[in-house]
Amino acid sequence: MIQDNRICQLFNIRYPIIAGGMVWCSGWRLASAVSEAGGLGLIGAGSMHPETLREHINKCKNATTNTFGVNIPLLYPEMETAIRIIIEEKVPVVFTSAGNPKTWTPLLKNHGITVAHVVSSSKFAIKCEEAGADAVVAEGFEAGGHNGREETTTMCLVPAVRNVTSLPLIAAGGIASGAGIAAAMALGAEGVQIGTRFALSEESSAHDNFKSLCLTLNEGDTRLVLKQLAPTRVVKSRLLDRILAAEATGAPADELKQLLGKGRAKKGMFEGDLEEGELEIGQIASTIRQILPAADIMQQLIKEYDATLSRLCDSNRRKV
Amino acid sequence: MIQDNRICQLFNIRYPIIAGGMVWCSGWRLASAVSEAGGLGLIGAGSMHPETLREHINKCKNATTNTFGVNIPLLYPEMETAIRIIIEEKVPVVFTSAGNPKTWTPLLKNHGITVAHVVSSSKFAIKCEEAGADAVVAEGFEAGGHNGREETTTMCLVPAVRNVTSLPLIAAGGIASGAGIAAAMALGAEGVQIGTRFALSEESSAHDNFKSLCLTLNEGDTRLVLKQLAPTRVVKSRLLDRILAAEATGAPADELKQLLGKGRAKKGMFEGDLEEGELEIGQIASTIRQILPAADIMQQLIKEYDATLSRLCDSNRRKV
Repeated sequence: MIQDNRICQLFNIRYPIIAGGMVWCSGWRLASAVSEAGGLGLIGAGSMHPETLREHINKCKNATTNTFGVNIPLLYPEMETAIRIIIEEKVPVVFTSAGNPKTWTPLLKNHGITVAHVVSSSKFAIKCEEAGADAVVAEGFEAGGHNGREETTTMCLVPAVRNVTSLPLIAAGGIASGAGIAAAMALGAEGVQIGTRFALSEESSAHDNFKSLCLTLNEGDTRLVLKQLAPTRVVKSRLLDRILAAEATGAPADELKQLLGKGRAKKGMFEGDLEEGELEIGQIASTIRQILPAADIMQQLIKEYDATLSRLCDSNRRKV
Repeated sequence: MIQDNRICQLFNIRYPIIAGGMVWCSGWRLASAVSEAGGLGLIGAGSMHPETLREHINKCKNATTNTFGVNIPLLYPEMETAIRIIIEEKVPVVFTSAGNPKTWTPLLKNHGITVAHVVSSSKFAIKCEEAGADAVVAEGFEAGGHNGREETTTMCLVPAVRNVTSLPLIAAGGIASGAGIAAAMALGAEGVQIGTRFALSEESSAHDNFKSLCLTLNEGDTRLVLKQLAPTRVVKSRLLDRILAAEATGAPADELKQLLGKGRAKKGMFEGDLEEGELEIGQIASTIRQILPAADIMQQLIKEYDATLSRLCDSNRRKV
């Protein structure tokens, strides 16, 4: 496995593997386990009240002396409070997403925080560089949760972003194996952010019902929905069927919002209501059939990456 | 560049690079140029009357003594006639798509033809193996033209198909560079089928208007539409806007068919009507800014692949 490259140096981590800070999944347990195993764990602030976030940050500090960070979507309702807590608690790394990187990056950088921003287009990757971000995450259509409107896949997005910025580049979306990591590196990434595989770990705080369901998913069992509101990749469910039916008859955004109501992601992913909850997971779930400890996942990723590189490099040496 | 692997041996080609047999783009000129350059050229029968197909096959035979093949979508209206011509003219390779591989594979195999089938799901990859196909093409959501309903991306589909079949595996969708080829190989493919990059070649029979437009595309400029009828990735256009508007108000399949009319792909891709035509191209077009001869494209792909492997293998050797 690659070590000591720009991503490793930037975050002071052993392997350029980041665990996404996912709502309802990425608490202090998952983040610290990944950091302890040599990657970068991220706490998912998107589903936490500010004081809950503070609590997770402190528990994470107690569980690991390695670097960890916080992921916070820029749509977070109490941004100023959360940012203040992040600064007060001296969190060294922040990943932001779903918004304009220019809004908070300067403040975070002024406090010595390393900042990465998640984008779904090369246009926003350029904004990252202009905003002074330290790294950019290029996340493709296949990723779980909130997605970009362009629907650009990881295979197409990573090279496009690589072409427009020289920032340290992290690929996300559809990566759950060492082979996937190797593919991302081939495309020009220097690190990877992995969501689904870590959402389906023992330390993930998601409900067991949700985890078990995700282990049964096949291709086509996730869908990008709510494109009028905010495109989100979710597992098919009764709630989803109602939403898709409404969308198909041309229901306006307000009606869809009503249908969705509040707290659906919590209901599904955290409380385990598989029929009425919103269940965010990536397409790559169809290749995952086992819940594992995060440390085992890390080991597996590293082993698979090395095996993939051996295979590719050997066959390249043997060429006529 | 990898040579002499299972795909090379199967098709008797130097490099495991196949040029997709695309409607309106892949005539004898493109197919023979790719085969001359060491890849596998495919004639796109989907947009040809049977006797036009025969003509292209014969011109291709005159232009190259290397292996070439024909791609024929199983929805082709005069399948029996086309298959008869393919057999009569002793075409050695046939790629089929958009249908059940069990229908024609046995007949083609009985005539000593090497058969590959394009799938968009691991479920259909299994059907390929059961049908006796010699190879399977796993084509992701990002590919131009007709797509699967599951919307599975290349990053997710290739590993899934690799898991269910030991058939020689070709990846397609989102590959237009040597880096993309390396990524596909990392994911478990042994060869690649490249569409968009060759659609935008000098030898491609598509209209110059279409080629020029595709060179200006950015991320998000293609869309998967007509999901009720047959999901197709096309460039945004006035025609497309009308179709999307109709889809958004819940127009039934029949009405969409009326709106689409006949001959839209020919109108757009072959006759150059960019507003009223249907323009099929892949997402990866956003990374392509130059029309090139097919031979130059092949050289570029090989050079980029080797550079990518050098980079990956060197950084792997340097690991701590």
